[in-house]
Amino acid sequence: MSEMEHFAAANQGFVAGYGGPAEKNPRRHVTVIACMDARLDLFGALGLDLGEVHLLRNGGGLVTDDVLRSLAISQRYLGTREVLVVHHTDCGMLGFDDAGFRAELAAESGRPPTWDVPGFRDIEAQVRESVATLRACPWLPHRDDIHGAVYDVRTGKLAEVLAEVTGPSGTKP
Amino acid sequence: MSEMEHFAAANQGFVAGYGGPAEKNPRRHVTVIACMDARLDLFGALGLDLGEVHLLRNGGGLVTDDVLRSLAISQRYLGTREVLVVHHTDCGMLGFDDAGFRAELAAESGRPPTWDVPGFRDIEAQVRESVATLRACPWLPHRDDIHGAVYDVRTGKLAEVLAEVTGPSGTKP
Repeated sequence: MSEMEHFAAANQGFVAGYGGPAEKNPRRHVTVIACMDARLDLFGALGLDLGEVHLLRNGGGLVTDDVLRSLAISQRYLGTREVLVVHHTDCGMLGFDDAGFRAELAAESGRPPTWDVPGFRDIEAQVRESVATLRACPWLPHRDDIHGAVYDVRTGKLAEVLAEVTGPSGTKP
Repeated sequence: MSEMEHFAAANQGFVAGYGGPAEKNPRRHVTVIACMDARLDLFGALGLDLGEVHLLRNGGGLVTDDVLRSLAISQRYLGTREVLVVHHTDCGMLGFDDAGFRAELAAESGRPPTWDVPGFRDIEAQVRESVATLRACPWLPHRDDIHGAVYDVRTGKLAEVLAEVTGPSGTKP
């Protein structure tokens, strides 16, 4: 059975027990930003039900332009007011060699990628940086309730990163 | 109870029954690209277990530079070889007014956003365009198994979009 056949078969069971439809606007008014990592099941880890939050996921859970675009739409048109950034232990972007990766892509394809590939060195510091970037974004109407957390892929435990989470000015908003 | 307190309480139950840890490299060697929409529970809809696939999610499930960056890392360093793009019915990016949104942000904040906000007009056409964009990306080593599907938020049903899915040259790879 191919992977797509497997998904199609699993989907039949899901449809049979489907609990939806849910409303379009997230009921908890929260957007969660996290890594693409296969070990992160956010519905399970946060106890989510269908229709509760927006989920943004990319390599590293980084606050990229694409995340800011999505979050601006989420807050302005779909009623979210709160953000939770989740980084996780053992992330592939920890210590990622940006320059080496760009050189590898350029050598193989004949041209460097048109995008950056930033890695980071410390998970908690990265959570604080992500939160600070969101708080400084002029296109987000709701920046008072931006939270950060670290998820441990060995245990499933989510730990909020509270200390030293400050606004761009260095004071907690 | 605040939203964060709710998530923390739910996480305690998740930790108590945690089935992990899983391996870092996705066991099914698949990356799924989908929208941030709150009505999409991909673990449920595709019958996923922890550690099986990478999940990339943004507003619209669009194939942005951030998605290409993440997917290049997924394929080159974490062993994925197959991609599934999932767009869904009733998407907020259907008929989205890019120019109007940019003007609104510029008027409120005093400066236009540094990023584009492309909408689309037709879900199936957008699936085909997303698949074509991925197949044409020179930085992805695995472009033979790129699939597209539409998810129906009323029923939970996933329908593969097969017809007219072609390579950049117009022929099915």
